[in-house]
Amino acid sequence: MRILVINSGSSSIKYQLFDMERGEALCGGIVERIGLEMGRVRHWALGDGGRREWVEERPVPDHRLGLAIVAGLLIDAEKGAVRSPDEIDAVGHRVVHGGERFSQTTRITDEVIDAIRELIPLAPLHNPANLKGVEVAREIFPRAEQVAVFDTAFHQTMPPRAYRYAIPTRFYEERGVRVYGFHGTSHLYVSKVAARHLGKPLASCNLITAHLGNGASIAAVERGRSVDTSMGFSPLPGLMMGTRSGDIDPAVVFHLHQALGLSLAEIDRMLNKESGLLGVCGSSDMRDVEARFHAGDADARLALEMYAYRIKKYIGAYVAALGRVDALVFTAGVGENSALVREMACRGLESLGIVLDLTRNNGPMSGEATAIHAGESAVEILVIPTNEELEIALQTRALVEPSPA
Amino acid sequence: MRILVINSGSSSIKYQLFDMERGEALCGGIVERIGLEMGRVRHWALGDGGRREWVEERPVPDHRLGLAIVAGLLIDAEKGAVRSPDEIDAVGHRVVHGGERFSQTTRITDEVIDAIRELIPLAPLHNPANLKGVEVAREIFPRAEQVAVFDTAFHQTMPPRAYRYAIPTRFYEERGVRVYGFHGTSHLYVSKVAARHLGKPLASCNLITAHLGNGASIAAVERGRSVDTSMGFSPLPGLMMGTRSGDIDPAVVFHLHQALGLSLAEIDRMLNKESGLLGVCGSSDMRDVEARFHAGDADARLALEMYAYRIKKYIGAYVAALGRVDALVFTAGVGENSALVREMACRGLESLGIVLDLTRNNGPMSGEATAIHAGESAVEILVIPTNEELEIALQTRALVEPSPA
Repeated sequence: MRILVINSGSSSIKYQLFDMERGEALCGGIVERIGLEMGRVRHWALGDGGRREWVEERPVPDHRLGLAIVAGLLIDAEKGAVRSPDEIDAVGHRVVHGGERFSQTTRITDEVIDAIRELIPLAPLHNPANLKGVEVAREIFPRAEQVAVFDTAFHQTMPPRAYRYAIPTRFYEERGVRVYGFHGTSHLYVSKVAARHLGKPLASCNLITAHLGNGASIAAVERGRSVDTSMGFSPLPGLMMGTRSGDIDPAVVFHLHQALGLSLAEIDRMLNKESGLLGVCGSSDMRDVEARFHAGDADARLALEMYAYRIKKYIGAYVAALGRVDALVFTAGVGENSALVREMACRGLESLGIVLDLTRNNGPMSGEATAIHAGESAVEILVIPTNEELEIALQTRALVEPSPA
Repeated sequence: MRILVINSGSSSIKYQLFDMERGEALCGGIVERIGLEMGRVRHWALGDGGRREWVEERPVPDHRLGLAIVAGLLIDAEKGAVRSPDEIDAVGHRVVHGGERFSQTTRITDEVIDAIRELIPLAPLHNPANLKGVEVAREIFPRAEQVAVFDTAFHQTMPPRAYRYAIPTRFYEERGVRVYGFHGTSHLYVSKVAARHLGKPLASCNLITAHLGNGASIAAVERGRSVDTSMGFSPLPGLMMGTRSGDIDPAVVFHLHQALGLSLAEIDRMLNKESGLLGVCGSSDMRDVEARFHAGDADARLALEMYAYRIKKYIGAYVAALGRVDALVFTAGVGENSALVREMACRGLESLGIVLDLTRNNGPMSGEATAIHAGESAVEILVIPTNEELEIALQTRALVEPSPA
């Protein structure tokens, strides 16, 4: 079975073509700068001689041409992996916002498209771009099943005490203002890997999963189900991120508007694009922040301390929420690669049963899960590389080809 | 020594006159509806026959007359406790916002008044009203020392990782946008009582203090110093309160404005005045919410579950921040009186070493601290009635009459 995974953004299309028997991607890439004067296509493929890459600059005026270019690459004798688009059995689409309607991966129909469109007010940046990908994929791969995998779906198991905001009920009932949470596909993927590593069914595992990428969120997973997460109505709150503020007193918005005269659009952009690590120390990339920290830079040190302290507090909060925790999981760019962040976030958590082994934490990461806790740690601490595209492919397969009863 | 404590609000003056040798208030009361058509004065005094109370309706056009009425009551042969205003040695003023300038209780001078005035942009509702009280008290009690006790001062020991927001540094450096925290006088007062109860110097105590009144905040106290607290730049974020939302994704502000057309002023009022318990279940008073919960009301149950769940998460976060915790303290109206909230907030925290004794929790509260934890609890759980007025009086005395070296 061949499954194409598509992540369609406002000006880009990311894609990977999976061979589900081998459980790996055969080729993939990204079409960037769609709609700009000059676009760019980056493509890679596995071959006999290993992984090869190609880059081409060419105008890509719209998503339709972008996905047609992708289709051409997938069937290219040298760069592709199939002979015809019809060999692609299913297309799995990342869709950011599924609202309360979609708590599961869903086969795409006209009615599902309408429902995703109705959710645009909740995700004005993401859902329209995701829908463009869906619409052109139905044209270009008409024989493939189209499936939507929602970033919010995994968190739909949260109880009301966690997902409701303490604002008048009508905003929830009439307008859907509540915590949704994001990165669900990643939190679910690493939860499954953690369960395998622990040798227990996922439904028996209590986990805290920290997805620390450019965006960052942390989730409390009780018996395999998300019961709380740090992002909220939008991907803005919670942990400190590359350019997003994470948690902040909403009265700061009123103050910046009233006392400083900033417009709401300016404040929105500032909190989403100019804050986080970037706002505090001028670098949004944790590798730069760490390098500056090691060189003695005080702003980088503060940014790191704030970043790690917030993770630490959420870990404590979720230990309180869960009661018992089997494993704490670090994943995504920073979570997988920054031993320093993991060390700073776990420092002083001994009373919660969380004890890092500094040697393991700084050692090589290998396989699908690397344990980095000390022998006396009641909670296992795992580094697990996330793979959202594979999870989307797996969920897509599970929907279109249910396992025999 | 006689110390008058004044809490001057926009339309009210609360006051208590303390006899510092006896360590208790001799009389006190509140002047309400200042500036409205008809004001009201409620006054009480301790006498031989116990506590007596008086209520009088009369116009009180401004704070000057309001405090003159208070002065008249204080020297009244029947209702008062001194023969002349000159017997009052000092006046301790509650001032809400001391910014970064005031980390200590401070003798009021013209320069201090100017500094408090400069902080008005940070506390536009409170500091002007507090200043009015200061100004008229200097006229009416010209021979008394005037002292300012700041609600923010206790939290000035927070480290930058806790008080900085992850937004561009210029907003902190040029505009003072940071976490200040409030209720500092109460958090400090109960911390001192907890230390006495624990039989240790405050400087050796790690505490989590939950001030649950109509406003509510929780603080992490490390070796006697506040290192984190749930309120922020303003008193809006953190725990769920009577009418305030507490923590909420700031993107909800943008959404309500853009998608629903609410003005910023409307959103501000909604989050501060129509949210919290009131927003979720229609009652802002925890006694009503509890009564409805016991009668089976689903909205009241949700409000209580949200309220307790947030406290629980902050307790976990502060256990993580502190590492070791000697005691968890509940205080203020809800904290002192709601066994149900304490029980729900502590349920499931055994892995953090926090184990409530249900019988003690539901038993009578007595003396200055009542222990309600089980024998096996690593953390003591204490109910301590707060007394912000007494703390203001004690700090005022400490400043004007330093203890002999």
